[in-house]
Amino acid sequence: MTTTPLSIAMLGAGNVAWHLGKALEKAGHRIVTVYSRTLARAEFLAEALQQAHATHLLDFSTTKADLFLVAVKDDAVTEVLQKAVFPPGSLVAHTSGSLPLSIFTAFTQLRGGVFYPLQTFSMGQAVDLKYTPIGVEATTPTDSQLLLDLAASISEQALAISSAERQVMHLAAVFACNFTNHLLGISQQVLAPHQLDFALLQPLVTETIRKSFANIPFRVQTGPAVRSDENTLHHHRHLLQNQPGYLAVYNVLTQSIQEQASKNRDQASK
Amino acid sequence: MTTTPLSIAMLGAGNVAWHLGKALEKAGHRIVTVYSRTLARAEFLAEALQQAHATHLLDFSTTKADLFLVAVKDDAVTEVLQKAVFPPGSLVAHTSGSLPLSIFTAFTQLRGGVFYPLQTFSMGQAVDLKYTPIGVEATTPTDSQLLLDLAASISEQALAISSAERQVMHLAAVFACNFTNHLLGISQQVLAPHQLDFALLQPLVTETIRKSFANIPFRVQTGPAVRSDENTLHHHRHLLQNQPGYLAVYNVLTQSIQEQASKNRDQASK
Repeated sequence: MTTTPLSIAMLGAGNVAWHLGKALEKAGHRIVTVYSRTLARAEFLAEALQQAHATHLLDFSTTKADLFLVAVKDDAVTEVLQKAVFPPGSLVAHTSGSLPLSIFTAFTQLRGGVFYPLQTFSMGQAVDLKYTPIGVEATTPTDSQLLLDLAASISEQALAISSAERQVMHLAAVFACNFTNHLLGISQQVLAPHQLDFALLQPLVTETIRKSFANIPFRVQTGPAVRSDENTLHHHRHLLQNQPGYLAVYNVLTQSIQEQASKNRDQASK
Repeated sequence: MTTTPLSIAMLGAGNVAWHLGKALEKAGHRIVTVYSRTLARAEFLAEALQQAHATHLLDFSTTKADLFLVAVKDDAVTEVLQKAVFPPGSLVAHTSGSLPLSIFTAFTQLRGGVFYPLQTFSMGQAVDLKYTPIGVEATTPTDSQLLLDLAASISEQALAISSAERQVMHLAAVFACNFTNHLLGISQQVLAPHQLDFALLQPLVTETIRKSFANIPFRVQTGPAVRSDENTLHHHRHLLQNQPGYLAVYNVLTQSIQEQASKNRDQASK
């Protein structure tokens, strides 16, 4: 690593804090403190790090850190910022995809920043951050560069992006990650009553994803909706008749695919 | 391969025919004929195979084949069966996920079967069929075993399944493959006007899929919908206000995720 090693206080001990903490330490930085509302949770992460001490108090007035990283749930960030006491002039960055940098304007004694890893984290499941995009932003160019260097020390995809761009990335991630997981959940539930193993779908899904990213996804759309195979669409709706929630998902996505196909045809005929 | 090598006539020269033809030949079987409505297409595939001759005629009265594989689009299968002339008593199998075995009852001189690979195929993109589930079905146990052996000669996941099970598998695949591709298409379109590269999402999507299949997907659901983060949901709807089609998809999936989360809570509290 060519970056200067930083001293970092980690506010949060959940999945994001855990993965970032471990990765940052591995890259040569020092996690000096781990905060969680629950002391046991803070201790659990602190013990997995080399030099961190655990706390459940938001008084950091004597904490020496180059960066305070607020890795708590989006809807808890503002509350943590309001309750915490930081040394004046501290750099404090949140890790949220949806919160704008401007939430720091209310905290005039702080230097605000954002350090957003575009990834889904779960406890106990190691994720290689090397290929995870990390979007950074700060109030000053100096802090922006500091966060960019920090991101580059753990990822090959460090990006300086605006709040607006980050929010668009987060919205795209909701479609690509959260909604995709839900669709897989419906698939699993559709198969389960017939004792068909969900794992049967894995080769298909793996190939679908590979093909999507090797192309413009709308151009490689397949299935009964895009080819207006009315017999199959009718039969699928019949199979879903007792699951109105899944049927609603089926209908909206079928309609969206058909609208897109119609747009593609219009463009092709121009 | 321990299976007896078969002589196979391939009706169809599209993606499914291409991939199955190549895989079957590689496993030691012989593709004797390739039919397509367009002779040039039939020739294109026949030339990629060792011993196949190409035809655009549906007269197979003198064709010697252990199996006639009808790998055309679902909505063309019945027409092909009606127009084709097979030697009496021939085994004819279609490759469709949605068509029941019973479509063969109208063709009393044929032995009907199904040979359904659960995969998405595109021209020029090699797919390893070794891990692709192949669901087979036939009117007689002997033919069922023949198709099962044939499937086992190219895949480790050969399965004897009923028409009803296959149709459920196909419905699950529409959610997991076709709809997932469409969601990725929306993500790409959401990013494009901001010059944000769609490839940024790939590590996230790869990890999402890995995690879904390592768990019950509904149990590892993340994102603003499942944690009822109203601020983020509101902001996302605002970002989508000029794209009513995408907004409809966003709303129905958000609602479906929240309904599922509510069911999970009800079950947990029992």
